[in-house]
Amino acid sequence: MTAETSALPANLPIGVFDSGVGGLTVLRALRQALPAEDFLYLGDTARLPYGTKSGSTVARYALQTTRVLVDIGVKMLVVACNTASSVAMPGLCAAYPGLPCTGVIEPGAAAACGCAPRGRIAVIATGGTVRGAAYQGAILRRRPEATICSRPAQLFVSLAEEGWTDGQIVTDIARRYLDPLMAEFPEGGPDCLVLGCTHFPVLARAIQAVLPEGVRLIDSAETTARWVAEELAARGLLRPGSDLPGAAGAAGATPGPGTVPTKGTVRFFATDDPERFAKVGEIFLGESIRPADVSLVDL
Amino acid sequence: MTAETSALPANLPIGVFDSGVGGLTVLRALRQALPAEDFLYLGDTARLPYGTKSGSTVARYALQTTRVLVDIGVKMLVVACNTASSVAMPGLCAAYPGLPCTGVIEPGAAAACGCAPRGRIAVIATGGTVRGAAYQGAILRRRPEATICSRPAQLFVSLAEEGWTDGQIVTDIARRYLDPLMAEFPEGGPDCLVLGCTHFPVLARAIQAVLPEGVRLIDSAETTARWVAEELAARGLLRPGSDLPGAAGAAGATPGPGTVPTKGTVRFFATDDPERFAKVGEIFLGESIRPADVSLVDL
Repeated sequence: MTAETSALPANLPIGVFDSGVGGLTVLRALRQALPAEDFLYLGDTARLPYGTKSGSTVARYALQTTRVLVDIGVKMLVVACNTASSVAMPGLCAAYPGLPCTGVIEPGAAAACGCAPRGRIAVIATGGTVRGAAYQGAILRRRPEATICSRPAQLFVSLAEEGWTDGQIVTDIARRYLDPLMAEFPEGGPDCLVLGCTHFPVLARAIQAVLPEGVRLIDSAETTARWVAEELAARGLLRPGSDLPGAAGAAGATPGPGTVPTKGTVRFFATDDPERFAKVGEIFLGESIRPADVSLVDL
Repeated sequence: MTAETSALPANLPIGVFDSGVGGLTVLRALRQALPAEDFLYLGDTARLPYGTKSGSTVARYALQTTRVLVDIGVKMLVVACNTASSVAMPGLCAAYPGLPCTGVIEPGAAAACGCAPRGRIAVIATGGTVRGAAYQGAILRRRPEATICSRPAQLFVSLAEEGWTDGQIVTDIARRYLDPLMAEFPEGGPDCLVLGCTHFPVLARAIQAVLPEGVRLIDSAETTARWVAEELAARGLLRPGSDLPGAAGAAGATPGPGTVPTKGTVRFFATDDPERFAKVGEIFLGESIRPADVSLVDL
């Protein structure tokens, strides 16, 4: 254990923050990968969405939300928001040099590269994430020869928040977004499709159903959870009773909710409307959330 | 002319503010009703959506945005946002007692009552507006015997912003929201349906197509424009060359864009991302917006 991490006992919770409820898909994957760990989750619901805001504003928000989690006490920070992951990581690492810290883009890009034998990678995300080209950068650093095509799929966010996760409407919208994207790749489409927004994993089944056969789905929630587990293990910060996730949790698989019994606790924080957070959040967490368990924080 | 309005020359612009781009449907109706008038439009795009925020926060934001418009100079304020209209009007009237001021809910409610011979009124809006029950209150003050049923229709916002205003997907989503709402009313449905969100008028044709025959559509943008014209006329604040809108602009009709030649100017302000404001805003304004014509303001 290094001097930097010696002040971070393994029994502290892991801090997760997002602009709202979408990051709960990351928390769900984290709880499945690390069932013995405790978590703090902060959704900046008063200021969502981050995807339409400037990078400097989002970076500032990320520092404010992280401060809340660090003040309570966390052993690692997970930025479970693609937009914040794309603009805020350098500032967060500089502000908290001793705190292990990851976003969702690097794990997602690494997983995509591992599932792309021909180097053909499609990305769907919010408009902000697509414009910022963070996935392109993270993929090209690993696979400079990769062919990447990304498209915004904003209605998926609303479908997920509405809880409309299957049926004809979802299928038709998925086709409208994905058929033209698939057509950008010759000879059978891309090797994989990155779900570059934390809202999208709840639509994974409907999305997979309209893709050409053989296109792998990359769920950055799942890959981030593995990344976090490996990082904590490497630093000797896993809580007693935690096990590293096995091969069954490999990139691309989207496990159903609640398949692993969890022992750790979660404390929720929202910057506005705890009741709505609890109601909509259940769709993403795959577990019920009691409004009384969500604390309001003012930022 | 009273002492209060004597400091408000008729040649000042009309100030319009909204949480984002949806209020541009109100601006479009205002420009059609009052083609000789100049306008300032401020979209608080950095802090949208208002619909998920607490009333006190939205009321504070409304005061800040109004201050920007008043400092530049306006002769009337139009709050072209349903959420802000439902919580911010008392504070705005108290802060600017000499400034004529209207939201969109009172005009919409008045128009609905005028189109409801049996007093049966359906309302669709954002979740925040529905929870706040502002339309119910404004309708019941006029028609205490009215039967009102309101439902959130959040996906309409995303469809409008995506520019998907017709086709099978829109029709299917409209049916999913509206069929159960219509079934709440016995014997042929309600008398009218209030479009209680500024995003919804761009979907008016698709919405009308799935309603039972005879259900009138109440576009609060159009009714607000008539309300503003009458208020300015009553105060002697109409610009020379402005005419009061005729019967052709009656409540319920949704005129196509650009049917009246406009002479007045519009200055746009956004609190984040002028380029996105211009791009998405065109859907709602029905005219092109040059990014260079949108000024960034920091709130």
